[in-house]
Amino acid sequence: MPFQINVTLEYSVQSRSTMLFSLHALSTPNQTLRNESFTVTRGAECEFFPLQTGENRYVQIDTCDLRQLILTYEVSAVTNPGSRLVREISSVPIASLERSSLRYLFPSRYCQSDRLGLFASKHFGHLNHPLAQASAISDWIFEQIDYTAGASDAATSACDTLTDRAGVCRDFAHLGIALCRALSIPARYFTGYACNMQPPDFHACFEACVGNQWFVFDPTRLSSPNGLIRIATGRDAADASLATIFGAVRLENMMVSCTSNDFQPLSRQDLEGKAILLEP
Amino acid sequence: MPFQINVTLEYSVQSRSTMLFSLHALSTPNQTLRNESFTVTRGAECEFFPLQTGENRYVQIDTCDLRQLILTYEVSAVTNPGSRLVREISSVPIASLERSSLRYLFPSRYCQSDRLGLFASKHFGHLNHPLAQASAISDWIFEQIDYTAGASDAATSACDTLTDRAGVCRDFAHLGIALCRALSIPARYFTGYACNMQPPDFHACFEACVGNQWFVFDPTRLSSPNGLIRIATGRDAADASLATIFGAVRLENMMVSCTSNDFQPLSRQDLEGKAILLEP
Amino acid sequence: MPFQINVTLEYSVQSRSTMLFSLHALSTPNQTLRNESFTVTRGAECEFFPLQTGENRYVQIDTCDLRQLILTYEVSAVTNPGSRLVREISSVPIASLERSSLRYLFPSRYCQSDRLGLFASKHFGHLNHPLAQASAISDWIFEQIDYTAGASDAATSACDTLTDRAGVCRDFAHLGIALCRALSIPARYFTGYACNMQPPDFHACFEACVGNQWFVFDPTRLSSPNGLIRIATGRDAADASLATIFGAVRLENMMVSCTSNDFQPLSRQDLEGKAILLEP
Amino acid sequence: MPFQINVTLEYSVQSRSTMLFSLHALSTPNQTLRNESFTVTRGAECEFFPLQTGENRYVQIDTCDLRQLILTYEVSAVTNPGSRLVREISSVPIASLERSSLRYLFPSRYCQSDRLGLFASKHFGHLNHPLAQASAISDWIFEQIDYTAGASDAATSACDTLTDRAGVCRDFAHLGIALCRALSIPARYFTGYACNMQPPDFHACFEACVGNQWFVFDPTRLSSPNGLIRIATGRDAADASLATIFGAVRLENMMVSCTSNDFQPLSRQDLEGKAILLEP
Repeated sequence: MPFQINVTLEYSVQSRSTMLFSLHALSTPNQTLRNESFTVTRGAECEFFPLQTGENRYVQIDTCDLRQLILTYEVSAVTNPGSRLVREISSVPIASLERSSLRYLFPSRYCQSDRLGLFASKHFGHLNHPLAQASAISDWIFEQIDYTAGASDAATSACDTLTDRAGVCRDFAHLGIALCRALSIPARYFTGYACNMQPPDFHACFEACVGNQWFVFDPTRLSSPNGLIRIATGRDAADASLATIFGAVRLENMMVSCTSNDFQPLSRQDLEGKAILLEP
Repeated sequence: MPFQINVTLEYSVQSRSTMLFSLHALSTPNQTLRNESFTVTRGAECEFFPLQTGENRYVQIDTCDLRQLILTYEVSAVTNPGSRLVREISSVPIASLERSSLRYLFPSRYCQSDRLGLFASKHFGHLNHPLAQASAISDWIFEQIDYTAGASDAATSACDTLTDRAGVCRDFAHLGIALCRALSIPARYFTGYACNMQPPDFHACFEACVGNQWFVFDPTRLSSPNGLIRIATGRDAADASLATIFGAVRLENMMVSCTSNDFQPLSRQDLEGKAILLEP
Repeated sequence: MPFQINVTLEYSVQSRSTMLFSLHALSTPNQTLRNESFTVTRGAECEFFPLQTGENRYVQIDTCDLRQLILTYEVSAVTNPGSRLVREISSVPIASLERSSLRYLFPSRYCQSDRLGLFASKHFGHLNHPLAQASAISDWIFEQIDYTAGASDAATSACDTLTDRAGVCRDFAHLGIALCRALSIPARYFTGYACNMQPPDFHACFEACVGNQWFVFDPTRLSSPNGLIRIATGRDAADASLATIFGAVRLENMMVSCTSNDFQPLSRQDLEGKAILLEP
Repeated sequence: MPFQINVTLEYSVQSRSTMLFSLHALSTPNQTLRNESFTVTRGAECEFFPLQTGENRYVQIDTCDLRQLILTYEVSAVTNPGSRLVREISSVPIASLERSSLRYLFPSRYCQSDRLGLFASKHFGHLNHPLAQASAISDWIFEQIDYTAGASDAATSACDTLTDRAGVCRDFAHLGIALCRALSIPARYFTGYACNMQPPDFHACFEACVGNQWFVFDPTRLSSPNGLIRIATGRDAADASLATIFGAVRLENMMVSCTSNDFQPLSRQDLEGKAILLEP
């Protein structure tokens, strides 16, 4: 059941620019890539590198003299998400967290968890298992925040969304992350592709760390966890921006698709009492 | 059952300053004053005036050459709050609001009701009577916001309090006002004295306008509505600041008391099904 | 040299709504109106009233059963702005301010002057005359803030604009007001029409009170002070919103024009050393 | 010329807590440590680890059953800061930045560089060398922001400080970082000890990356760059918090000292035309 991903981005270039893209799918234990192809208009210079420890794959493009830049990305991905029975997942104290998870406890640009301690403990503090808390946070966001294109912008943070009660997938993820961290649950930002999402677009959701495993939650409920293909992991969208531009370009056209011939999204019932992890 | 109010404020004066105080009780149809006395250290110049249409009584003090300024205020006040059965209060459409109430629908410095429309309608929109909404807002604030001295400062607004979930009476009132206005219920700020409050201090709460009558709510539950003596009414604390200083002075000491020999606060039961109005 | 003002607003109405409009020009000592005409689609109910003490003229419209609402407003206005030599304008201490100006010292929804004291004194505190300060504030805003349609929204405040350095006339005015108040100069919001503005639209600027006279400043420099026709005065846009909607309508079309046969805008030289007041 | 550092922290413990401290000096090519000693009240459990790639040294303490916890830290450090003539430092394009610097271009919790592009380019865009820009930013902060203990709190960000114009070393550093990043200069947070600082305390400043070298700036001018001993490097204070507490403890007493027998701070003249780097 491979997912077929196709992306085309067209930019007009006003002045020579350097662009950083994070749109390549990751290759991980549970995510296998085939037939990957990345093309850029001839005349641009490309360089490929991970920014840190394997959590993303950047491509840096120098537009050189081009006035128009077209990127295409194609890949076929096979994933193997796992599931755990919630009642069998045990929590670990902060002192036993893997060190690499600690930084996902700290506040970040769009996730001001340092301000949300009271809010989080009042709403979710009565639940006595961090996985139940993360799950309740995701449900609460789905119920309380309106998914509204245009309700937010690139500067919108979790505190804004908590006030305004509207946003898009990025905002939903930021709020989920901020609330988890406010309860001392490490949480991180996931960007990727989501099978059959309508309208087709890049997607964002969040992962919470319980018992040193990372469970995925999509508070928008626009994707199914078994239809997610990871591009990058980060503290928030500042770490995992799809495109960072140094210079003057304009996105003229974008086409994203992620499909699969026989994809069966998990139902709410399938997920009952279970939590999903994308990686082992 | 007169309330006896005594205030002493001591300031040290670093440079000649102009000070505006709003601490005189109002004289209204339901609030009668006796034996009022206001003194200021000899050498200062005082002027008394209302700022607008009878909703406050300002005193302006020029410190002249004084290095220390002591104010005392004493008054005996009798109030006559009324009560209505909630089920007998009918609402009026916006179009039938008294014109003087309209401005209490608009956002103000500390009450950004323009941002809280979604929040308010999600939390309180299911209630079909504005008085039930105002009452639910007051209860919700009491339950969800921690009363914590020092958790807020002079720049704290309703949106901050909604995020931080902690504040003092001023913050509770601002949040109540902002949420009412977000539901198109006119709401205004009340500052005054509250009988037997512990610790003794000035107090703030809010009034909501339903059926062209103003009902009072104290989301802190630190006062009883039959123990309130009004100083001023305004859109928020920016309109009804107890002291506004132009110059350089420092408050060195403050003593406020409001007592009554035989004051009986209303219980939650007394208030069951009823709403209280301070003025007819 | 009368100004001819024509406005047409077209709304589609999703559900019965109450709308408050503030788009009638004021009649004042220095602003005379002729041939005023206001029409609304037959079937709507209108009521006219000032909200407070003569500083605006509201019309309230009940859409009743209409699905489409068209408003037209026409008026011919003659204004008579005055000018003063800056060097002849004397300042007055706070204690001698007219009482009605005092409330324009306080912070308001979009003008958080309470946070800008240090900023204002560092930038403009060296100027020893409040009129020079207000004028320098207006110039500074013109130089430091980009006029960019779409850079701000209805929730944008003076502090936001100070950070983002971009906005529209409303934002420029709010920042001017906030900085004046932070220096203890009363300042208020002006909405109105501006002759020959490109593109034609409603306009906003601010007035600062010095020596108990109100001088007008347009930090956008898109209008000339002798081409301004006042609609309303308020503490900020919350007081003087052109349209406040209770219900569900959508603005489908807007046409605003303000022209004059022989209008000569004042040049920077004409304004050299002078300050303009719209009213005596 | 070794620096002698002594720290004592006393906490009362209300409930069993996990504490993360980042107060050990780093061992780096230019910073040599001797006679390091770290003690904790017997009964607590300690674990030592770096959080990421050598940029900090954390100690994690489990308070176990202790009611009082006392930490002491002593070390003797020798540093070897270098200097470069500003005119000899060449800039490199984004595309030639070392990959490890890229993440210091992105906004972070307290450094919302994404909102400050216009501000930064208006104030510092005319300077044509990034080192001149970073230096001008540091000078500008020194001149425009008041160093005021108590003017900020743990939630204060660069945008707040830009508005409020007051803060402490942490706020100065955050603003410097945010403005550099807004100009596409990688910038990072430095926490450490500063020789002879008055009053003695931990210190924070910032480093800007030009030509793939990190130059240090202290916009508070409370330290001299040759008197700095590094504890940690991070994106902002969220990455490099001195103490992160999970549980309920209270700091009862803190003593920090950093002295040297024959320390000569660099004068403004020494620094004229030069930039200082702490590491090669």
